[in-house]
Amino acid sequence: MRVLGVDPGSNATGFGVVVREGGHVRHLRHGVLRPPTGAALSDRLHFLHTELSTLIEAEKPEVAVVERVFIAANPRSAIVLGQARGALLASLGASRVRVVEIAAREAKKAITGSGAADKGQMQLMVTRLLKLDETPPTDAADALALALCFAQAGALADLPIRGRRRNNRRAMTEIVAGRTR
Amino acid sequence: MRVLGVDPGSNATGFGVVVREGGHVRHLRHGVLRPPTGAALSDRLHFLHTELSTLIEAEKPEVAVVERVFIAANPRSAIVLGQARGALLASLGASRVRVVEIAAREAKKAITGSGAADKGQMQLMVTRLLKLDETPPTDAADALALALCFAQAGALADLPIRGRRRNNRRAMTEIVAGRTR
Repeated sequence: MRVLGVDPGSNATGFGVVVREGGHVRHLRHGVLRPPTGAALSDRLHFLHTELSTLIEAEKPEVAVVERVFIAANPRSAIVLGQARGALLASLGASRVRVVEIAAREAKKAITGSGAADKGQMQLMVTRLLKLDETPPTDAADALALALCFAQAGALADLPIRGRRRNNRRAMTEIVAGRTR
Repeated sequence: MRVLGVDPGSNATGFGVVVREGGHVRHLRHGVLRPPTGAALSDRLHFLHTELSTLIEAEKPEVAVVERVFIAANPRSAIVLGQARGALLASLGASRVRVVEIAAREAKKAITGSGAADKGQMQLMVTRLLKLDETPPTDAADALALALCFAQAGALADLPIRGRRRNNRRAMTEIVAGRTR
């Protein structure tokens, strides 16, 4: 199963793609989509939409995990973030990929053990867990963490039945309960 | 000049198309885009994106006037509105149509004479000014008002030079100053 993580942002949208093979999760690709600065808002949002469509076309993920937003700092920044999310989610809708939303706190807790982990801790753990040669940029690390978090939960569910199987399955269900549809 | 007005909303996005011919503005079409209720968020945003793309393809507007948002009631509704705007603006970006943003207050003042006009007053004035047989739904009336507001300012600028020409031109400049790029 190929999983795409997306961390939406109007200036920088992180993405990361991992693949789950049996009980193992492997890194495939990551990066940051940066709309051209100084371009019109509609052009910047079109950029996010088309770049994500191109990425989905190339990587063919079965699931896209998008960072869920509970509350933004203020209505102005919420509109700006919402617009980026809208362009990206419309692209995911066009591709018919299954969309799951996971809160940053959940991903942080799953990856670092703490829901209050900072950007640096996330970068460190994502680099270690995916055995990367270089530390990814923060936005890409957050996106990889989202993908990894979902893929790992699935990987645990794939393991042969052990004493902890049911707990693992429950953990996955909790995460999956965050999906959009 | 063909002008498309768009009043973004996650459940109902109004649109209206008018054409300016010399000093006259004529109604062409209006309606409301309603994403399927109960569908996934990504599917609903994809619906807005593709429906607007289809509309642009059919009507070929040279300018799209989108309601500008200053502040939303709260961050949660700002995210929801922002997402709809993002999907719609990405579609406008894809079509390369020029995008202008006009605040609801400006449109209300231009159409009814009062920036605090209610929905009913806007419907009434839009129906009268565009000589419509039936009153359009509120979302479509707001979208038509945006298109009309911009087209009328342009129509005034097209008039032969009169005593009030310079004032008219200034009024248009003020409105056009609200554009995105």
